[in-house]
Amino acid sequence: MVFVSGTSSRRPDNTIAGADADELGTTRLDIKVQTEAVLENINVILKEVGCDLDDVVQVTTFLVNMNDFGGYNEVYGLYFDETGPARTTVAVHQLPHPHLLIEIQAIAIKRAG
Amino acid sequence: MVFVSGTSSRRPDNTIAGADADELGTTRLDIKVQTEAVLENINVILKEVGCDLDDVVQVTTFLVNMNDFGGYNEVYGLYFDETGPARTTVAVHQLPHPHLLIEIQAIAIKRAG
Amino acid sequence: MVFVSGTSSRRPDNTIAGADADELGTTRLDIKVQTEAVLENINVILKEVGCDLDDVVQVTTFLVNMNDFGGYNEVYGLYFDETGPARTTVAVHQLPHPHLLIEIQAIAIKRAG
Amino acid sequence: MVFVSGTSSRRPDNTIAGADADELGTTRLDIKVQTEAVLENINVILKEVGCDLDDVVQVTTFLVNMNDFGGYNEVYGLYFDETGPARTTVAVHQLPHPHLLIEIQAIAIKRAG
Amino acid sequence: MVFVSGTSSRRPDNTIAGADADELGTTRLDIKVQTEAVLENINVILKEVGCDLDDVVQVTTFLVNMNDFGGYNEVYGLYFDETGPARTTVAVHQLPHPHLLIEIQAIAIKRAG
Amino acid sequence: MVFVSGTSSRRPDNTIAGADADELGTTRLDIKVQTEAVLENINVILKEVGCDLDDVVQVTTFLVNMNDFGGYNEVYGLYFDETGPARTTVAVHQLPHPHLLIEIQAIAIKRAG
Repeated sequence: MVFVSGTSSRRPDNTIAGADADELGTTRLDIKVQTEAVLENINVILKEVGCDLDDVVQVTTFLVNMNDFGGYNEVYGLYFDETGPARTTVAVHQLPHPHLLIEIQAIAIKRAG
Repeated sequence: MVFVSGTSSRRPDNTIAGADADELGTTRLDIKVQTEAVLENINVILKEVGCDLDDVVQVTTFLVNMNDFGGYNEVYGLYFDETGPARTTVAVHQLPHPHLLIEIQAIAIKRAG
Repeated sequence: MVFVSGTSSRRPDNTIAGADADELGTTRLDIKVQTEAVLENINVILKEVGCDLDDVVQVTTFLVNMNDFGGYNEVYGLYFDETGPARTTVAVHQLPHPHLLIEIQAIAIKRAG
Repeated sequence: MVFVSGTSSRRPDNTIAGADADELGTTRLDIKVQTEAVLENINVILKEVGCDLDDVVQVTTFLVNMNDFGGYNEVYGLYFDETGPARTTVAVHQLPHPHLLIEIQAIAIKRAG
Repeated sequence: MVFVSGTSSRRPDNTIAGADADELGTTRLDIKVQTEAVLENINVILKEVGCDLDDVVQVTTFLVNMNDFGGYNEVYGLYFDETGPARTTVAVHQLPHPHLLIEIQAIAIKRAG
Repeated sequence: MVFVSGTSSRRPDNTIAGADADELGTTRLDIKVQTEAVLENINVILKEVGCDLDDVVQVTTFLVNMNDFGGYNEVYGLYFDETGPARTTVAVHQLPHPHLLIEIQAIAIKRAG
């Protein structure tokens, strides 16, 4: 059983995929880009322990705005179909960085080899 | 081990138990009715895989308003006592539909037959 | 596998560690004191079933204000290092009592004896 | 011109009309009782300066939960009709005390005597 | 002095400009369309009493998501420049209808004729 | 009559008084420093039009966290006593920049000279 930490679209250099802000703090954030980056980041984490996204059994998605559900769900549907993991999606008050629109926590079960 | 998706009081026809709204969007929502419907919906899901509510070991409850805790807790107490699942209850910013007051995520462990 | 309920800094007598309020409801809350009390409370719960914090594999932390992240993270770092549990941290709208700044849900795996 | 501070259902002895909580902090709050108390409190404040609710030209209402709109609006309609003050109603994150469901800010214009 | 109620992009037939939702409640909302409709609606209200947007001295804008600031500000800049009204912009928890992204409250001063 | 825009602790160079963040976005924010800077900024704005803080008749304060009320109120009390402006204080979901803890909107009335 593999527990994946809450994963954002943060890149190894600490910049955030799908996020841009001007000097006054006005943001241009893209839920589709962020969702794709989150799922790819989770895939990388899972591969390090010999799993991949097909092994995920539970997904808990934290958005910050339910109006992003449509864009998030469209990208999610490219990775998982109705046979995919049990999914819970809520919009919380805040994620750890103000430019994040989405963070996903996952549980995977490693298949016997 | 059975992972149950975030479950609301939504009925198979996509109407929502315990929710009513007039044409201006003013809502009449009932936390007790919604909580009962959520737990019954989870029970149906569990029965499809040979479990029931007695097999639940972890419950994560997402409300949208902590003032609903009393009504939710009263109905919850009809289904589970202190020997019941580990429970976490938080109020989030938004659930996937604005008429939802509660959504519950669960993990059950299937008993050996 | 051990599932720990959402745990706060509440003491056995229902007072809350790291929380004080005057008669008008103005609060003086301390995220470091609350975080330490939460982790100690979880440790007590785990010891009752023959585990301790070293057995925790997943931590889900619910804050109510992301500006508390720094203080929470400082105390958390005294208990866990980078080999610690998978961690998710979000700020929700409300916790069950208005004086709570933090609540943690955990999963532990009991080591074979 | 008279500016009325944000007014709640707090009584002179600092208890709150339409609010009750048990020792665990579980609340029983009543939006209709609170709305009536707020409007009566504003009326008392206005009378001290020779005005009353009929002189109010702007009302800004802060709820904490838009599902309370129906109950609030029903009581509001007993005090004001469509010739009443310009009204704005939003639900904020928090009011100064966690048991408050509503707070109203008002501007009145004193009629020439 | 003219006090304008909190104004949304709601049309006379109660539909909402810049808002669309599918049968599951997934929304497609457009902050630029909504902002323009709000300002046009306020202009109509002001014209009924012999004013227009040039007479506005105070604007209070309630968004529900600060990530909409950029789009809102771009449209706002088509109506007002730096000599325009005193402006306050905050993101609240909820507006009266879940499809609203913006609501504006205004005060105007009627010019002597 | 003077309408003051929502004013934060932002300095002329766009840095924010009472706010600091590390490269991961973890914040160290100080409500007392921010409150003082906001009131001083408002005073500067009022002086440009021949008023000062003593002329303020209405204050609307937007916090983002009601646990900051104590610190805010302590500093506020150094500027205004019970004969001061009508005051409303609410905590909203978000202010225009994520490092802001407080923003104040004010109305002043210019005294005849």
